[in-house]
Amino acid sequence: MVSIPAGISTPHIMIDVAQLEKNISKMAQRVASQGLKLRPHAKTHKMLEVAGRQLDSGAVGLTVATVGEALSFALQGVAKIFIAYPLWVDESQATRIVELMRRAKLSIGTDSVEAVQQMSQMLGEKAAKIRLMIEIDSGHHRSGVRPQDAVAIAQAASAAGMRVHGVFTFPGHSYDPDGIDAAVNDEFKALAEATRLLREAGFEIKRISGGSSPTAALSDSSVLTEVRPGVYVFGDAQQFELGRIGFDEISLTVAATVVSRHEGNEQIPRRVVLDAGSKILGSDRPSWATGYGRIVECPDARISALSEHHSTVLWPENLELPAHGTRLQVIPNHVCQAVNLVDSVLAVHPDDSTEVWDVAARGLNY
Amino acid sequence: MVSIPAGISTPHIMIDVAQLEKNISKMAQRVASQGLKLRPHAKTHKMLEVAGRQLDSGAVGLTVATVGEALSFALQGVAKIFIAYPLWVDESQATRIVELMRRAKLSIGTDSVEAVQQMSQMLGEKAAKIRLMIEIDSGHHRSGVRPQDAVAIAQAASAAGMRVHGVFTFPGHSYDPDGIDAAVNDEFKALAEATRLLREAGFEIKRISGGSSPTAALSDSSVLTEVRPGVYVFGDAQQFELGRIGFDEISLTVAATVVSRHEGNEQIPRRVVLDAGSKILGSDRPSWATGYGRIVECPDARISALSEHHSTVLWPENLELPAHGTRLQVIPNHVCQAVNLVDSVLAVHPDDSTEVWDVAARGLNY
Repeated sequence: MVSIPAGISTPHIMIDVAQLEKNISKMAQRVASQGLKLRPHAKTHKMLEVAGRQLDSGAVGLTVATVGEALSFALQGVAKIFIAYPLWVDESQATRIVELMRRAKLSIGTDSVEAVQQMSQMLGEKAAKIRLMIEIDSGHHRSGVRPQDAVAIAQAASAAGMRVHGVFTFPGHSYDPDGIDAAVNDEFKALAEATRLLREAGFEIKRISGGSSPTAALSDSSVLTEVRPGVYVFGDAQQFELGRIGFDEISLTVAATVVSRHEGNEQIPRRVVLDAGSKILGSDRPSWATGYGRIVECPDARISALSEHHSTVLWPENLELPAHGTRLQVIPNHVCQAVNLVDSVLAVHPDDSTEVWDVAARGLNY
Repeated sequence: MVSIPAGISTPHIMIDVAQLEKNISKMAQRVASQGLKLRPHAKTHKMLEVAGRQLDSGAVGLTVATVGEALSFALQGVAKIFIAYPLWVDESQATRIVELMRRAKLSIGTDSVEAVQQMSQMLGEKAAKIRLMIEIDSGHHRSGVRPQDAVAIAQAASAAGMRVHGVFTFPGHSYDPDGIDAAVNDEFKALAEATRLLREAGFEIKRISGGSSPTAALSDSSVLTEVRPGVYVFGDAQQFELGRIGFDEISLTVAATVVSRHEGNEQIPRRVVLDAGSKILGSDRPSWATGYGRIVECPDARISALSEHHSTVLWPENLELPAHGTRLQVIPNHVCQAVNLVDSVLAVHPDDSTEVWDVAARGLNY
């Protein structure tokens, strides 16, 4: 892992470019060897510099969550974009979707007859060019329909002159220490069932899309045609604590400074406070996590509390507290949140030269 | 509460200007009647339009958390700024602090001899002009020293040619349903003790600063000279669930759309999914909260899960699920996080006219 460059103010997000490139190439090779296509989720990084490396390594296109993200990448030249989200297309979105379709080959997610009809009504004849992807609920119970409800949506699409291209799911319940194998199995079962029913009803299903970063390694082409991992480019403390990666595979950290330091006593905890809080780390904390992130220099330290601009770090009893002004690297729990909190990051190359990369699609929530 | 203007894309943060002004004026009057000064925390809103209304209502200056926030407001003409944070001043910050001091009267927090010496070393003779505020730990156990440790810091400041102006604390443990009265008591006790010891040691303590939004109403001038509430301008679901405010006092909501809708069965929950996730609501969720925010139109609904661009809402069994495309207003749990996720908000006036307000200090983490 690269070290914190002198002269940068903290807190600051930094990227180890060599490690980033290793992560990108490793996933590309693994997915290819599984006979799958890779359509990585760009909501994690929101940066052209990362997207460019993914596409150069063989990704077939990008996945995004919003029309705004899609436009940001399309305007920068990305040619194939999948909005893996059950969009409800309103008038103002319709205008932007038309602009988007002039620049990129577009797939859009849906999970209801109503949303398909709305899309068709808002986009008119142009809707026929969209590759519609039906979202299936594989056990996460967020958006997505049960496999048996996919046919009605496909029929509504046909009736509206739209084209169903495939099915997708997000196995979000894989984000659990004991849930990964079961989630992969659920994903396969749900997508296989939906595909079978749709094909029996006469629909040509070309794309069968699954796969989060935790499950991508367990995916294969027995059911899926592609996976959409996102977090793998950087890794984060969640992935580490789920046992999917080591510290040495993390390519993004937050450089922070010890601003407060307290030996503690019976009543008051022994701790240091860093200048990185929830406004740069994000405040996601799954119930099974050990804290609000991890510290590279001290794996046994625990971030027990997070305010907007402070993290409270309980330091191991057997180690001396770091001095005031010490700089430490924090691994955020959920890296997609962290990146979205800054306008730019500092990319550090192996020769210690640095570049500023813009988080171009930051904050594009619609 | 104003309703969602037609034609805006969701998710979108909107502000009810009339309610915002009521909240600002109510707090200003209450604090004045308690014999206290009001130095509101601007990290909540980060907007000149809100700061201007606070200053026009009699606030003596602004509180901020970072040098970047301070500069953003100083460059827009705010004349008195308190960085209520134990800064560790590095070289690049020192340059910006000097720029800041050319434009505003500046107070800075500290909680260690080391940080005072570092500040003095980095700023040289200019450090003498800073009003140093010693942070006291009143029970939140984050940054801040015990009252008995304040004198050593004041002595180090004198030795370095710097000026101690006062003491401050943040009673963060007041953010608990049962903790408010005790936290107010802790705050008074800790600040009174630190002030007494500092005065006995010969230091002239002019400013005694406390008060979060939950505790401000319970503060008085028996110990304090000022309070620094932040959240009160907008209110949020945390304040509502702590019993401090009603829905009718909330001035900021996130306009969202029902994008997915599921009747559910024995295995799968009955729910709707909104297009507002953690990238616009923030993901803060205290242990005692009922969910990840509240829905204005349906107080009994529960936001049971939050992804980056989805909120999963369990709808009351006795009420019909809202139709696809229905627009609802969500009250975020922690409004400071929500505002920091967008570049601008839509301010809605009582006559339904709207303005775009820039979140000028968004993302200024250092």
